[in-house]
Amino acid sequence: MVILGIDPGLAHTGWGIVETRGTLCRARAYGCIETEAKTPVDTRLGAIFRELSRVIARYEPEAVAIEKIYFGQNAKSAIATAQARGAALASCSVAGCPVGEYAPAEIKQSVTGSGDADKIQMTFMVRRLLALDHDPKPDHAADALAAAICHAHLSSTATLYAARVGANSAPELREALPGGTNARYAR
Amino acid sequence: MVILGIDPGLAHTGWGIVETRGTLCRARAYGCIETEAKTPVDTRLGAIFRELSRVIARYEPEAVAIEKIYFGQNAKSAIATAQARGAALASCSVAGCPVGEYAPAEIKQSVTGSGDADKIQMTFMVRRLLALDHDPKPDHAADALAAAICHAHLSSTATLYAARVGANSAPELREALPGGTNARYAR
Repeated sequence: MVILGIDPGLAHTGWGIVETRGTLCRARAYGCIETEAKTPVDTRLGAIFRELSRVIARYEPEAVAIEKIYFGQNAKSAIATAQARGAALASCSVAGCPVGEYAPAEIKQSVTGSGDADKIQMTFMVRRLLALDHDPKPDHAADALAAAICHAHLSSTATLYAARVGANSAPELREALPGGTNARYAR
Repeated sequence: MVILGIDPGLAHTGWGIVETRGTLCRARAYGCIETEAKTPVDTRLGAIFRELSRVIARYEPEAVAIEKIYFGQNAKSAIATAQARGAALASCSVAGCPVGEYAPAEIKQSVTGSGDADKIQMTFMVRRLLALDHDPKPDHAADALAAAICHAHLSSTATLYAARVGANSAPELREALPGGTNARYAR
C-alpha cells in the first residue's frame, strides 16, 4: 500500500510517501513545499495545491493521512494553517485520494507507543520504523511521514481484525475495533 | 472588466460575476456552492475548488475579489471558513486570476457609503447598484456580489486617478491614492 502523509502549513507543507509490505514500512520519498511570506496568499495556496497534485500524480498513493487540525491559542497561525490545509485537501479530493484524519496524540501513540512523545522520540521512531540511515528533514517532512506510518499501522490492524471477524471493509471494522479509534476514513 | 466576487464558507460558498462598463456595474451571474455537513471535509473542499474552477472557466474573470478573513470568537467556524477559503484561493491561483482582498468595513463603505452598514442596507444597495429587479439570494451570493462591486469601485477610482497623475498600473497608484485603502492586489 502506498500512503501519502501531509503536514500542512502556509510556509511549509511537509509530505512523505510511505510504502507498506506486510508489517514493514519504507519511505519512498519525502519533502517540503516552501512558500515565501512576501508572496500573495492565493499564489502560496496555489503552489501547495499544484505541488501536492504533482506528488500524487507521481507516486499514486492509495490513501492520504493528515493530522486533525489543532485549535491553538494563536488564531492567526491557526487560520493560515487551515487555509493551507484547505488547499492540500482540495488537491487530494480532485485527485480522488481518500483521506484519513488522525489526532496528534493518535499519531504519537501509533509511532512511539506514547501519546505524549516529544519531537526527539518521534524523529527517532520515524527513522527506525522506516529503516532510514539519517533523520528525515525538515521536521515537516518527518511529521508527514509519521502521519503516513500511523495510517499504515491502523490500516494494518484493521485488516488483521477484518480477517478475524470477517468484516468486509476497513471503515466498517474501524467502528468495531476493540478500544476504538477516532480516526476517520474519508470514504 | 469582469470581476468574480467570492464569499467562502465550508457549507456555503457564494460567488458572483460582475461586469463593469464605465461607471456601470451589472450582475452577469451569481450562485452558491453548497456542501453537506455529513460529507467528508476533503470532498467538500474538492467540490468548492472544482465548482469555482468551472465558474472561472465559464466567465473568465479578469480579477477576483474576496473578503479578508475575520478572526471571530468561534474558532471552529473560523477554521472551517479558512479551509474553504484555502480551496477557493487555490482555484483562483491555479486558473491564473489575480485576487484582491478587502476588509468587511471596506466593502460596506464602498457599497453603501458607510462601513457600519447592516445586511438590509447592503442588500438594498447591491440590488440597486446592479439594477436587479429582485434581491440577490442567497445572502452568500449577495455578499460575493458586494465584494465584486467593491473591487470595481476601487479599480475604477484607481483608473481615474491613474489617468490624472499618469501612473501606469492600479497597484502602483493604489499606494498613492488620497486617503489610501488597505485593499491588496495579489499581483
